[in-house]
Amino acid sequence: MTAPRTVAVIVGSLRKGSFSRITAKALESLAPAHLKLEIVEIGDLALYNEDVEKEGAPVAWTTFREQVRAADAVLFVTPEYNRSVPGALKNAIDVGSRPYGKSAWAGKPGAVVSVSPGAMGAFGANHHLRQSLVFLDVAAMQQPEAYVGQIATLFDESGQITNEGTKGFLTGFMASFATWIEAVIGR
Amino acid sequence: MTAPRTVAVIVGSLRKGSFSRITAKALESLAPAHLKLEIVEIGDLALYNEDVEKEGAPVAWTTFREQVRAADAVLFVTPEYNRSVPGALKNAIDVGSRPYGKSAWAGKPGAVVSVSPGAMGAFGANHHLRQSLVFLDVAAMQQPEAYVGQIATLFDESGQITNEGTKGFLTGFMASFATWIEAVIGR
Amino acid sequence: MTAPRTVAVIVGSLRKGSFSRITAKALESLAPAHLKLEIVEIGDLALYNEDVEKEGAPVAWTTFREQVRAADAVLFVTPEYNRSVPGALKNAIDVGSRPYGKSAWAGKPGAVVSVSPGAMGAFGANHHLRQSLVFLDVAAMQQPEAYVGQIATLFDESGQITNEGTKGFLTGFMASFATWIEAVIGR
Amino acid sequence: MTAPRTVAVIVGSLRKGSFSRITAKALESLAPAHLKLEIVEIGDLALYNEDVEKEGAPVAWTTFREQVRAADAVLFVTPEYNRSVPGALKNAIDVGSRPYGKSAWAGKPGAVVSVSPGAMGAFGANHHLRQSLVFLDVAAMQQPEAYVGQIATLFDESGQITNEGTKGFLTGFMASFATWIEAVIGR
Repeated sequence: MTAPRTVAVIVGSLRKGSFSRITAKALESLAPAHLKLEIVEIGDLALYNEDVEKEGAPVAWTTFREQVRAADAVLFVTPEYNRSVPGALKNAIDVGSRPYGKSAWAGKPGAVVSVSPGAMGAFGANHHLRQSLVFLDVAAMQQPEAYVGQIATLFDESGQITNEGTKGFLTGFMASFATWIEAVIGR
Repeated sequence: MTAPRTVAVIVGSLRKGSFSRITAKALESLAPAHLKLEIVEIGDLALYNEDVEKEGAPVAWTTFREQVRAADAVLFVTPEYNRSVPGALKNAIDVGSRPYGKSAWAGKPGAVVSVSPGAMGAFGANHHLRQSLVFLDVAAMQQPEAYVGQIATLFDESGQITNEGTKGFLTGFMASFATWIEAVIGR
Repeated sequence: MTAPRTVAVIVGSLRKGSFSRITAKALESLAPAHLKLEIVEIGDLALYNEDVEKEGAPVAWTTFREQVRAADAVLFVTPEYNRSVPGALKNAIDVGSRPYGKSAWAGKPGAVVSVSPGAMGAFGANHHLRQSLVFLDVAAMQQPEAYVGQIATLFDESGQITNEGTKGFLTGFMASFATWIEAVIGR
Repeated sequence: MTAPRTVAVIVGSLRKGSFSRITAKALESLAPAHLKLEIVEIGDLALYNEDVEKEGAPVAWTTFREQVRAADAVLFVTPEYNRSVPGALKNAIDVGSRPYGKSAWAGKPGAVVSVSPGAMGAFGANHHLRQSLVFLDVAAMQQPEAYVGQIATLFDESGQITNEGTKGFLTGFMASFATWIEAVIGR
């Protein structure tokens, strides 16, 4: 029996009804039972500015950092904006990485799911994010990769996945992530 | 005699005394006389959210879009945050790219200067930004590339460049950019 | 009336019947009449090694360099191997870039078409290649981008494009490239 | 006491006296005693071509694949060519990844050291390689990152590291890699 693990889920789109958020919720229901996924909101984070940090970090920043730090692992679910990660997501990464020497991300196991309405599955966002994770020392799971294209066709109106192939793929993805989390935590 | 050209300068760091801003100001003084550089501020832009766009874009967004649209060219001066562009800069890119089909960036000539306190010159930020510029149809100048490392050692307290090598390099960079702007506008 | 322009076409796959090669040939037939596309072969280029250069460059290297240098523009048509450009294509780039200070690529206008049997259109190859083009001073056309997925479904057995949407897209792509070539050459 | 682990070392430059090779040998002497580093040569690998695979893979290909497969882990030491990995290194990656479904790389722990004569430490090569490692399912160590600049100044004529800071950094790098190898193998 595996000990419970908490997973901070970062959703790259701020739209209430975003496909990233719907996907994040679906992943929660498909994950092994011992993984507790919780979305950590990023929409209220002011743009990172070191001057502001020195004057006193806003409550939203410190709360976000504590939420990330408290989690055993992190899972990113994101669309692509202009061939890269959305600014809001990159800002959350920056806020969580500071102040210098006190990054909330350091050492955690991580995984990336990128989604797109078109065919390409937000490849550009997926790999730009991975480049940041190297610096953040988030040990990102390599396989399976998750580039989920045609995202608008995969769910019903209640947010349930209707595509069986996608359901099976994402279930396997979360099972692999659970294994990966234990390997990284156990090192 | 070359016609005057306006260049919108986007500074990637929000710190008042940031090296990116100091560099941007130095570039203004080193540029050919017919280039008018003007910093377009990005610190007041709310995080992009399509829901907000539908409810009515904030004034800061529409002002920013108009400022970018009015310029003949764009110049990015940026540090690297976590091996990529700062969230604030990526957010400005996203805001300027919307609403769909009305991107303020489209078709403009552009150039990238990345700066770092360390040796590597913010290479990661430079190229992640360039990947976005492909999608935005900003025709980015390829050569010379500008990765300005050891940035803290290059200026005096008044913001004047004291390193002659850097001064010569950046003067050449702006001259090349001026030529590039005419090529792209003339197509 | 536009002056004739020669375009060196670099095909990223060495397979005789590769989809990249079929696509390259299709592009030739869809291009404006004043563009003369010619495939420059890369399969006989020995792996780049500076020791070999010093002993005397192989004929295949010098021939390749001359062919690239003689062209007005370069067009890359490539699949993705392991989320990047094929080694054979990267080797051709390296061979063409040397000896130091005598790159065959410098200053030419360029364009990238990436193709894949799957959905994602070889995005990873496309953008890794573009990063090299920055250094090579090949002015790469930004828009339209060409990520051609499902490549195995687009042609008949004789290599003719059967998909009308693809045909129209690639025709427009080559028309844009023709315009881009003139802008870059005229600078 | 830790069980012995074999590490296949892939050197990105084919030059006999390359700094990558000198660095690789230095890493061997700095590594924990239970790690056995062995350079796997890539200079005799013909350019990957699926047609050739079908006719019968060259001995150099099958030998290389067996050498990689036999190792417990892989370590890449590479320069940057044209802002990406050298063609020879990318070709070795491609050869090792085939035939389809029989990749020699799959599941191994890995690490990347990039070196450059200039300041930037071959950042572009380092991260392009990492993007391939995601697909190859090589679990790449995130921290410490190793971008070794000014490489020509760090060794004496016998190939010994003379810079104490570099020596300490690379010793720590190999110690971290040893720990990482056990975590990945033990999953």
